Amino acid sequence: MGEKNLSIPTLKRLPLYCNIAQHALDMGKTLISSSEIADCLNIDSTQVRKDIAAIGYGGKPRVGFDSKELVKYIRNFLGLNKVNNVILVGAGNLGTALARNKGFLVQGINIKAVFDNDPKLIGSDIEGKQIVSIDNLQQYISDNKIKIAILTVPAFVAQETADKLFSFGIKGIWNFAPVNITHPKGVVVWNQDLVSNFITFIKFVKTF
Amino acid sequence: MGEKNLSIPTLKRLPLYCNIAQHALDMGKTLISSSEIADCLNIDSTQVRKDIAAIGYGGKPRVGFDSKELVKYIRNFLGLNKVNNVILVGAGNLGTALARNKGFLVQGINIKAVFDNDPKLIGSDIEGKQIVSIDNLQQYISDNKIKIAILTVPAFVAQETADKLFSFGIKGIWNFAPVNITHPKGVVVWNQDLVSNFITFIKFVKTF
Repeated sequence: MGEKNLSIPTLKRLPLYCNIAQHALDMGKTLISSSEIADCLNIDSTQVRKDIAAIGYGGKPRVGFDSKELVKYIRNFLGLNKVNNVILVGAGNLGTALARNKGFLVQGINIKAVFDNDPKLIGSDIEGKQIVSIDNLQQYISDNKIKIAILTVPAFVAQETADKLFSFGIKGIWNFAPVNITHPKGVVVWNQDLVSNFITFIKFVKTF
Repeated sequence: MGEKNLSIPTLKRLPLYCNIAQHALDMGKTLISSSEIADCLNIDSTQVRKDIAAIGYGGKPRVGFDSKELVKYIRNFLGLNKVNNVILVGAGNLGTALARNKGFLVQGINIKAVFDNDPKLIGSDIEGKQIVSIDNLQQYISDNKIKIAILTVPAFVAQETADKLFSFGIKGIWNFAPVNITHPKGVVVWNQDLVSNFITFIKFVKTF
């Protein structure tokens, strides 16, 4: 199966499998079965085996997966072994929280710079990440060959900011603003819909 | 199918279907097909029909779903027509951003109070939501019959805070701290793993 044919749900599960296998490894478990992975996520073990087969990893029949090999394989597949440089636009509370999150860098994701239009913020930094004026976006994206941006600006400027980002060469926006962003073909916007996630969680707790 | 048998992936898709049907309605589309919903989410239309059938909603064969009815049915199923009171613990950047997010209340989720241990914050408010001392958690949870908490404290106090919350009667924690929280049976912790989501997104953009 070509990479392009991997479904988004499969792509979403891969980092979770990787975390579970890493956790097993940290606990000294060198082998992990698809059922054990499935149980951690409340999904079917057939799904786990299908997903892992879809990225070309086999595992040993009856024995399970080698935890270390599985972590390595998925990390490599996801491109986590090299640094992915991204930018973040909007240094409000959420943007600041994301820029401070050390979990990204552990996974090879480097938030290289933070952009804002507030003169009081420009020139300062968030844990070593420079806050740059939004006026410098085009230059910075071009100089640093940035392809991915995290968008944490207020809703009312989200569309115009996204338009700029795409015109400057950004290929993917991870959007936290609660608006549907329209965009040209050939680029991607994913909405991180925290509200929907929380709705699902509340319903789950109620029926638990 | 009983509510307890609904899979988590189904539960996660329901709010998205609801958003899509609402968007269709806002655009004046009174009917929406499972294929149209599926296309918005890059999933199979069979999946959409299965999920919607699983919650007991039929739709009209060949004609599609009545957008308004579908929104109403899913909202009712998810309990969004009445207010769900929750608390948030940890008034840092992320906690503050979540407390400010007006999207929750639109969906009937009321972050009723915010808790922190910082004396400089206690007594102030975030957009009208009172910041209360963590020492008052037990009393507040009991007085207000709160069952669900959002956890946005630093990683190193996440486990002890979660232990307290469960002992005070909380049944579900939506956890943003980057740690695996151990918990007693009969309660639920969901990790909002932003880093994993972003990894998936980056991979998706690269293979797009």
